[in-house]
Amino acid sequence: MPKPLINGNAVVAQSGGPTAVINQSLVGVVEGLRGAGSIGTIYGSRHGVRGMVSDQFVDLGCVAQSELELVAKTPSAALGSTRDKPDAAYCERIFAGLQKRGVRYFFYIGGNDSSDTCRIVNELSEKAGYELRCFHVPKTIDNDLVENDHTPGFPSAARFVAMATMGDNLDNRALPGIKINVIMGRHAGFLTAASVLAHDHDDDGPHLIYTPEMVFDPEDFSSDIDRVYKKFGRCVVSVSEGIQDHAGNAIAATITMLQRERDAHGNIQLSGVGALGDFLAERVKTDLTPKGGKAPRVRADTFGYMQRYWLDPSPVDSDEARRVGAFAAQCALRGESDGSVVIRRVSSSPYRSECALVKLEQVAAKTRHMPAEFIEGPGRVTKAFVEYLRPLVGELPKFGRL
Amino acid sequence: MPKPLINGNAVVAQSGGPTAVINQSLVGVVEGLRGAGSIGTIYGSRHGVRGMVSDQFVDLGCVAQSELELVAKTPSAALGSTRDKPDAAYCERIFAGLQKRGVRYFFYIGGNDSSDTCRIVNELSEKAGYELRCFHVPKTIDNDLVENDHTPGFPSAARFVAMATMGDNLDNRALPGIKINVIMGRHAGFLTAASVLAHDHDDDGPHLIYTPEMVFDPEDFSSDIDRVYKKFGRCVVSVSEGIQDHAGNAIAATITMLQRERDAHGNIQLSGVGALGDFLAERVKTDLTPKGGKAPRVRADTFGYMQRYWLDPSPVDSDEARRVGAFAAQCALRGESDGSVVIRRVSSSPYRSECALVKLEQVAAKTRHMPAEFIEGPGRVTKAFVEYLRPLVGELPKFGRL
Repeated sequence: MPKPLINGNAVVAQSGGPTAVINQSLVGVVEGLRGAGSIGTIYGSRHGVRGMVSDQFVDLGCVAQSELELVAKTPSAALGSTRDKPDAAYCERIFAGLQKRGVRYFFYIGGNDSSDTCRIVNELSEKAGYELRCFHVPKTIDNDLVENDHTPGFPSAARFVAMATMGDNLDNRALPGIKINVIMGRHAGFLTAASVLAHDHDDDGPHLIYTPEMVFDPEDFSSDIDRVYKKFGRCVVSVSEGIQDHAGNAIAATITMLQRERDAHGNIQLSGVGALGDFLAERVKTDLTPKGGKAPRVRADTFGYMQRYWLDPSPVDSDEARRVGAFAAQCALRGESDGSVVIRRVSSSPYRSECALVKLEQVAAKTRHMPAEFIEGPGRVTKAFVEYLRPLVGELPKFGRL
Repeated sequence: MPKPLINGNAVVAQSGGPTAVINQSLVGVVEGLRGAGSIGTIYGSRHGVRGMVSDQFVDLGCVAQSELELVAKTPSAALGSTRDKPDAAYCERIFAGLQKRGVRYFFYIGGNDSSDTCRIVNELSEKAGYELRCFHVPKTIDNDLVENDHTPGFPSAARFVAMATMGDNLDNRALPGIKINVIMGRHAGFLTAASVLAHDHDDDGPHLIYTPEMVFDPEDFSSDIDRVYKKFGRCVVSVSEGIQDHAGNAIAATITMLQRERDAHGNIQLSGVGALGDFLAERVKTDLTPKGGKAPRVRADTFGYMQRYWLDPSPVDSDEARRVGAFAAQCALRGESDGSVVIRRVSSSPYRSECALVKLEQVAAKTRHMPAEFIEGPGRVTKAFVEYLRPLVGELPKFGRL
């Protein structure tokens, strides 16, 4: 229900793990607001909500268009990001910080935690009778926001994972062995599953894919690999950092080294550490070494932070990330009071998407998982997933064989 | 001293860790030989010397040009590679395998071990009075072949490392902390040092760079990081997998988990495992946590096998890799009896290089290290290194800042 426009300043901020295209969304918001009569200063808040509670702002309204274009093409959060997960008291301070600066429009680019922060701040402003229009702009390489066909940041990360797995498959073909690649995604397996795009010829990897939505059994894991290894003399495996056992416990949580550090959400550290890959490689090596025989060559790589910053974004992703930002600005300027921007797929061939605005509480603090129709069973994803993913990642290279 | 040409078949093979451009060299050899009257069949040997002792060959002479072009642009060794390090007896079997197939021209694309294999097989043929012309075609991402300005494969890997560090620096700027990146290079630090190209602004990472040529002291490491962390509130560190202590022992060798596996060369496994990064991160976290205070955010990524297969090669590298292959074929066709192809820099600005042929024993089994003029001290490389490297890696992206 559009309301009359209100005169005031705007603030935009970025949160959570940065992506290759999060600055496209930032620039989309800024471009969308510039020149609008009711918008005063367009503030950028440094390091997400931190800047709002510590009064660290940058004036985005006066940044030259050429510089904005350069920022849009720059990976990672140009304003800085934060892992802070504001509680009610923290949100009060955010609200106070925004009031102090005369902010009437709040745009928060981030994942499901950010949409929840938006929701809480929005409620505080309503309670206080202070007109504040709060918009959540989606972002996450994990692709785990509900209501979205997919989230900005995911297609570029998926492109990286697919390209890395393509190269890894060729490397493993040249020097055969068992190769385990650990891929980001604490709760949702979309990114790990994206490695499937590397599969072209019958004998291509990834030969096996394990996501958090599949039950992970270490014994089955070894015997699945053994089967592939016997067939092709090699095996490339994609494993999500968030794989879980029958009881829903993260496998990583069973590894001593990983138990040490927990973040503000109580989660153990999964990224920026190679222990899960090393653990799985050791386990497979032990399981598949014949008595008195030679151990197979087993290696593990943890794809790491590159997945979220690699400098070759999907063109679809760059475009959509810009559009969700611009759409949020449009919503504000047409008098929407709050909401979360979502991406909806209009058609797959030719690929076309559109933006829509849903209620903040529809997205806030909810996690989307890979749906059943994308999972064939432990180690395998479906053709439906491939069809869902392919239009998002852009052109992939073609290779020769001898 | 050119000799008269001899009629016979040719064999070409690829060895060691594949690179993004090793197939350019393969195609360079094949194109250079095709149509030459004295060359019969052009064999490709599967998995390096393994194919020669097990009679696994593919006829490369009849591969369509369009397919060859596609292969040239495909990363990793299209013929397959091998880690076998032939001893005298193995070389006898290679020599027998080549004789059996009527081979008179042997092209081996690889590093210093491959040039040594070339040398031994060459000696065997001389001793046997069997005319065999042996050519080593250089390849290694480590850039550790003597007599070469640089080696094909290195510029593309350097480009990857530079681009990854550029993205990592931006990521670390957005979510500040201490980030350790472990980079390939057992004995030579060129590839780790290549991360320096990510440095643009004063506060950009990599803030510290450690190569095997610098003495690595874990205590100094922590205090170096602490100094940067105090200055910038963050620190991005590039560490070679082959860093060594005062006594020349690999730091990785002190980590229990890494001591388990040794390769045919007696080396411990350094790649395909995250333990060194995890070990350093833990050490730094422990050293820099104030008594009763909060530990800094420390993360480690091991860049892994991507370094050698990433699908965005340096254009200079692609061109030179093709040219070293073609040059080897030219040498054969002008009657050279044996040798190792090397790359020499003619000028840096504009960049230009040329190929030359040196004796096999000049390159064989020797390791080149980073020269003293490229090292400023522990943690730092010189401007001379930057000037040496920059023309090799191709255009790097430019970024915006807010």
